[in-house]
Amino acid sequence: MTQITEAKKGNITEEMKVVAKNEGIDEEKLRRYIAKGYVVIPKNINRDTKPVGIGKNLRTKVNANIGTSPDFVNIKLEVEKAKVAVKYGADTVMDLSTGGDLSKIRKAIMEAVNVPIGTVPIYEAAKIAKEKFGKVIDMNEDIIFKVIENQAKEGVDFMTLHCGVTKQSVDRLKKSKRVLGVVSRGGAFLTAYIIYHNEENPLYKNFDYLLEILKEYDITISLGDGLRPGAILDNTDRAQIEELLILGELVERCREFGVQAMVEGPGHVPINNIEANIRLQKSVCKNAPFYVLGPIVTDIALGYDHIAAAIGGALAGYYGADFLCYVTPAEHLRLPTIEDVKLGVIATKIAAQAADVAKGNRLALELEKEMAFARKNHDWEKQFNLAIDGEKARKMKEEIPSKDKKACSICGDFCALLLVEKFLR
Amino acid sequence: MTQITEAKKGNITEEMKVVAKNEGIDEEKLRRYIAKGYVVIPKNINRDTKPVGIGKNLRTKVNANIGTSPDFVNIKLEVEKAKVAVKYGADTVMDLSTGGDLSKIRKAIMEAVNVPIGTVPIYEAAKIAKEKFGKVIDMNEDIIFKVIENQAKEGVDFMTLHCGVTKQSVDRLKKSKRVLGVVSRGGAFLTAYIIYHNEENPLYKNFDYLLEILKEYDITISLGDGLRPGAILDNTDRAQIEELLILGELVERCREFGVQAMVEGPGHVPINNIEANIRLQKSVCKNAPFYVLGPIVTDIALGYDHIAAAIGGALAGYYGADFLCYVTPAEHLRLPTIEDVKLGVIATKIAAQAADVAKGNRLALELEKEMAFARKNHDWEKQFNLAIDGEKARKMKEEIPSKDKKACSICGDFCALLLVEKFLR
Repeated sequence: MTQITEAKKGNITEEMKVVAKNEGIDEEKLRRYIAKGYVVIPKNINRDTKPVGIGKNLRTKVNANIGTSPDFVNIKLEVEKAKVAVKYGADTVMDLSTGGDLSKIRKAIMEAVNVPIGTVPIYEAAKIAKEKFGKVIDMNEDIIFKVIENQAKEGVDFMTLHCGVTKQSVDRLKKSKRVLGVVSRGGAFLTAYIIYHNEENPLYKNFDYLLEILKEYDITISLGDGLRPGAILDNTDRAQIEELLILGELVERCREFGVQAMVEGPGHVPINNIEANIRLQKSVCKNAPFYVLGPIVTDIALGYDHIAAAIGGALAGYYGADFLCYVTPAEHLRLPTIEDVKLGVIATKIAAQAADVAKGNRLALELEKEMAFARKNHDWEKQFNLAIDGEKARKMKEEIPSKDKKACSICGDFCALLLVEKFLR
Repeated sequence: MTQITEAKKGNITEEMKVVAKNEGIDEEKLRRYIAKGYVVIPKNINRDTKPVGIGKNLRTKVNANIGTSPDFVNIKLEVEKAKVAVKYGADTVMDLSTGGDLSKIRKAIMEAVNVPIGTVPIYEAAKIAKEKFGKVIDMNEDIIFKVIENQAKEGVDFMTLHCGVTKQSVDRLKKSKRVLGVVSRGGAFLTAYIIYHNEENPLYKNFDYLLEILKEYDITISLGDGLRPGAILDNTDRAQIEELLILGELVERCREFGVQAMVEGPGHVPINNIEANIRLQKSVCKNAPFYVLGPIVTDIALGYDHIAAAIGGALAGYYGADFLCYVTPAEHLRLPTIEDVKLGVIATKIAAQAADVAKGNRLALELEKEMAFARKNHDWEKQFNLAIDGEKARKMKEEIPSKDKKACSICGDFCALLLVEKFLR
């Protein structure tokens, strides 16, 4: 029993009711979208969380990645990052830990926050393989599927699984003249596995078995883009699209099987290719929810990649991406700090709101309207309440105050609004 | 003798040579664009600065606004802001001071930095009127034109003059149901003047006289958008477009007269209306360089408006805006600090680069290529050198280092690039 199987039967679940209410859309319409696979509600049957809908006609959602690395392990800090991410509006959190006791970290995060939690199980498989055999490359099917089953039982709500990294797509990759080969960690593990062992990707080879596990717990599969380009120079190349075509085929198998599916996308995309990327995914993946990583629109924003990603994410959302993975200022440099997580979430929330406004989402427009009237009325309290980070806005305003309480210190008593309002009445 | 009159005569000036070289374009082609008014080089004959070209086929330029307000005056700080803005890549600086000794501040800024300086003379006129008569509204033609002439002599390179705020456009504004009436300071002064005195805007009424002054010093006029909407809710309304039509007419008069002209644009524009705004301006203003203020794409980013503006600016630049006025995190809240100025410039530089990459600008693409190869080669020094703010990027990387010198602490020895490169050779 999954959301999609229920929806196909015509049943409106409790989760669907909550999502319909939060999004201000009709329950029956939502049910139809879920039945068709246009919307997913990632929620493991073993976990009690606030249901979040992702997909067609819903507000653009934001994910925050956190987690340890082999270089830096601090569980408390990761839990704090998860809390900060949710505080500033992340709709979901992915635990991408690769250092320390992964199960313990996962559980701590799942206890700390009440949003859907995602993972990339191949990371844990790689870690186990390295510890057991000394090398990631010695990963095997058993390790991979045991990890997936174990995480499923623990209550993970959605899993990124790079099922489209196959002999065929890796072949296309080898023929390409990409500058940066593979920049996805999961994609790299599987590409290396396929080439080294000359074997098919276990996740692809045993896709039906994988679907059985996911279905049992109603885990939403996030079909990972392991071959996404890692540079503007490489964007939208043949290897990326080959993988996307495979993911499109797998989406249909997920839907038939009764597993909720979304598809991941790039990455590094210049503004002029974002629309094509979104339209192509929506077409070949039959309107599956699209989960984009950024995209960042230039590679020279090192230290400010949250801004490069907000540009790409806003545009992607406008063209139809449903789910934006945040990028923090620390991207390409180091693990994010708590402040980085905060800035990453806020930048991505701005992008999501901008996309929703542009798409004409009623709730997003309502927020803009309230802000416009708060400004008209010089109601600063209301403005702070409506702002994504009202705390910071208030602090900033108070740092250099204006003598005129209605104005701010940019214009003081030359405030345009105050000057002209009496003449326009 | 102005750049446009010389270009019309077929002469390639020293300034054109410098611009052509910096932009990597043909001198003769640039001359033709300047003759037609598609490109401007704002440079007062009384000031010796590095020539900067703005317009067709050139890289997107970035302006930083600084200046005092009645609430806060500190000349040293404003000079420091100008320097920081230029350090992080601002192509021009506008001094929007309205508090303290304006002439002294202007001179200090012009001495401190070697980029074109812009002003909004009506601010000084308003300040003088207030000091002399007690009220801004008592401004008169004499004050306005004396200020313009004085600033021209001082060496100001470009001036924002709100010549399109006229009886006709204010009439259209009055008939509209805008939530936020007028948010441009210059626009507000002139709107109030027109309504209170029932007189035409002196800048419009005496446009030929204005052009004579500007021509004498080869000051580029930036035709201000005094009636730009101040909220997403009000975007792209009839009052804005009425003013734009008037500005389009004035552009032609500038060109005939031999004065370089650009046109200012919004402001607050949702993503879905940015393309229309740019194409409309380019059409009705006959390809005059377009100078946009942001645009910000949502009103709820209080405290982070530099990000909302980077989204809008990148998109505007992609569709053809030539010149992006930065927005700092302090927008709508208070005067910007030095840190705000830095963040505003960097966010806008990211937007400009993203736009130039998307438009296929050769120099912008070259930068992306160099960054991709620096990453391929794990050459961190090169990456820091290519980054907009390499200093910050280096500091961040060193804060949480990886044990593997080639990697960073996000993945450590699970670095995708390092894992897979030997298999893809």
